Amino acid sequence: MTSRGWLRVVGIGPGPAQWITPEVQAVLTEASDVFGYHSYLDRLAPVGRQELHPSDNGQELQRARRALELALGGARVAIVSGGDPGVFAMAAAVFEVLERAPAAWRALDISVLPGVTAMLAAAARLGAPLGNDFCAINLSDNLKPWSVIATRLRLAAQADFAIALYNPRSRARPDQLQHAFELLRSERPERGAQTWVAFARAVGRPDEDLSITTLAAADPDRVDMRTLVLIGATGTRCIERPNGQPWLYCPRHIDEVR
Amino acid sequence: MTSRGWLRVVGIGPGPAQWITPEVQAVLTEASDVFGYHSYLDRLAPVGRQELHPSDNGQELQRARRALELALGGARVAIVSGGDPGVFAMAAAVFEVLERAPAAWRALDISVLPGVTAMLAAAARLGAPLGNDFCAINLSDNLKPWSVIATRLRLAAQADFAIALYNPRSRARPDQLQHAFELLRSERPERGAQTWVAFARAVGRPDEDLSITTLAAADPDRVDMRTLVLIGATGTRCIERPNGQPWLYCPRHIDEVR
Repeated sequence: MTSRGWLRVVGIGPGPAQWITPEVQAVLTEASDVFGYHSYLDRLAPVGRQELHPSDNGQELQRARRALELALGGARVAIVSGGDPGVFAMAAAVFEVLERAPAAWRALDISVLPGVTAMLAAAARLGAPLGNDFCAINLSDNLKPWSVIATRLRLAAQADFAIALYNPRSRARPDQLQHAFELLRSERPERGAQTWVAFARAVGRPDEDLSITTLAAADPDRVDMRTLVLIGATGTRCIERPNGQPWLYCPRHIDEVR
Repeated sequence: MTSRGWLRVVGIGPGPAQWITPEVQAVLTEASDVFGYHSYLDRLAPVGRQELHPSDNGQELQRARRALELALGGARVAIVSGGDPGVFAMAAAVFEVLERAPAAWRALDISVLPGVTAMLAAAARLGAPLGNDFCAINLSDNLKPWSVIATRLRLAAQADFAIALYNPRSRARPDQLQHAFELLRSERPERGAQTWVAFARAVGRPDEDLSITTLAAADPDRVDMRTLVLIGATGTRCIERPNGQPWLYCPRHIDEVR
């Protein structure tokens, strides 16, 4: 292969430019072509004669294929995810296309560059709710059956993980978060009022909004597609503050044998 | 409270300076005092008359208390974690101290600033092994009973999460990773040879080393305290490349009902 093109699959974090790593910033400066969901590209400052290739949600495989083709043709291509590219984002889509493509494509210079994923940013704003063992579940059933999601939620509750729910709700899926809450309540019947739940909306954006409630009181209508939902573990603690948002954290130690 | 001091709990990523966010870099420049595990402080360039306060592993609560006291006295204090401060790191220790401290301490200006945690960096180097639902488990039983860890491993395997194991092995805990592998094999008796396992050592450091094996063949002696262990889910795929490290990724879609 004589192409000198490359593909970088990068994460720009969930919020402001100050959460973009210098490594990713350098790629965004060097790239001749940048692909991504249009609202992520809107957050980037265009560089020189760089070409932006915005596309819609649900177009991940087409976006990955087009980016690979351009890079194979010699272009310097970045694919942007909002957050980390490896967490429910573009990196998996790129490898899905690559695996099915002609074997020669595998010689292309490809790298994935890490970023700050939404749950880490949300956790930082809230305190340290991921301070002990945790899991991350994509609540969307666009690409997997709801039965798999329900089973994972049940087992995560039994494991007493803190749980980060990505894509908790959209206009096309208005009721799944309510089902998830009901399922978690049924796994923790004695603990609903003691299980902390946080809604972290648009973290790092001008309209950021944090709220803390309990599993018993959690209202799915307060959640939209830009919200990350964090479910606390048994040990999760809430520290009230005289002014401002309480801190939520999960202690590192677990004393009792469960 | 008249103090104008502040405390920033920051993550410097697992590797090079190019993984430190600009937000964290700015705090490291402004801080009068920087606390952290000594090998993390060794990675920072000292700034002006800034005072470094290195300490050992296991000193987290003392480090957090001393940092809080200095900030309450008016200092501009950063506490450094290697990775993200909220994932098995200093943020939880700070809030553990704060919760037990006099209520007046809660008026202090405290923020947690996110970073790239080790599993995201390791996943990026490997491809996209966290591309579907996953969990993160600290394998150390210094602060929780092994029975809790074993239960969580079993349930994580039943949930078919990809699993990131932090602190998989140390000189004081040479045998737990072997126990973890045996336990996961017993949960997936028919899948040991088909379950991918990756060892990502010192990711982003000059002595970085990646290796990919299977659960059936995984040798704990290849793992040390600087290694992150990633266990694949059922759907995890390995893409061979003509030159170099194979890619490991977990597809976003799950087709069959389990």
